[in-house]
Amino acid sequence: MDEMKTYPKKRLSIIIEAPFMNRLLDILDGLEVPGYTVLPALAGRGSSGPWRRDSLSSDAGRMVQVLVVLDEEKVQDVLKAVRAVLDRQMGIVSLSDVEVLRPDYF
Amino acid sequence: MDEMKTYPKKRLSIIIEAPFMNRLLDILDGLEVPGYTVLPALAGRGSSGPWRRDSLSSDAGRMVQVLVVLDEEKVQDVLKAVRAVLDRQMGIVSLSDVEVLRPDYF
Amino acid sequence: MDEMKTYPKKRLSIIIEAPFMNRLLDILDGLEVPGYTVLPALAGRGSSGPWRRDSLSSDAGRMVQVLVVLDEEKVQDVLKAVRAVLDRQMGIVSLSDVEVLRPDYF
Repeated sequence: MDEMKTYPKKRLSIIIEAPFMNRLLDILDGLEVPGYTVLPALAGRGSSGPWRRDSLSSDAGRMVQVLVVLDEEKVQDVLKAVRAVLDRQMGIVSLSDVEVLRPDYF
Repeated sequence: MDEMKTYPKKRLSIIIEAPFMNRLLDILDGLEVPGYTVLPALAGRGSSGPWRRDSLSSDAGRMVQVLVVLDEEKVQDVLKAVRAVLDRQMGIVSLSDVEVLRPDYF
Repeated sequence: MDEMKTYPKKRLSIIIEAPFMNRLLDILDGLEVPGYTVLPALAGRGSSGPWRRDSLSSDAGRMVQVLVVLDEEKVQDVLKAVRAVLDRQMGIVSLSDVEVLRPDYF
């Protein structure tokens, strides 16, 4: 079987308070971002103090992590667009290098 | 105390529809991959459109993220093995560089 | 609009059994780490075998992923401090490079 080729992309992680998630996803829907995945957080600590570290079983709550894999040339536009949501509260935005199997989609 | 030494590995992330998770994990179990972790997704958008962005409290559902940390020399074999599952639907596979504390295990 | 500037940091991921989470978070609270996010895991396999890959709907359980973004110069101190918790069980610690939007906080 041939070697599996991979292609460089950027992975954007935005950790944001859950009530702002839909607004962030609306913004991503309006950009040329082919998809995203949202993971629920269980507990955390940020500038406003710790939240919910005792209970493992209640409903997923306060923060979510939104993951987007995208072309490097789209990163600046996406960062600028999400800044409106992030400026008003404490989202943590981080970017990293990833390799993907399929060059299209992103 | 001594400096903590770290060792380069690869981190493989596979975001896949939940019904295919067990098949993917069976494949990983058959490979020389020492472990994996599966995180539930809450919402997302992919080539088949958005899913579940309104409810934060229902059961974890549609997509999961499977994380594997492994030796670089095993990456090609693992990618080839998971391709059978991924080809039939829209999993997002991404690879990145990580450093780990323990050189064994992977 | 100006180019969005980013700043290099380190992303620390600790996958740990849930009963040890609070002890790990206490340690992080005692260090100069500005925040963390905890994600629940759904299933996994480690040195003690697989756990919970059949049920997607029960309470989040056995393992969690603790994410911390921090300055590179703090990494060694944090690794040394969490080692006490990790030595006694099978946490997987991995470090990677990320870029963040805000240079402060970390």
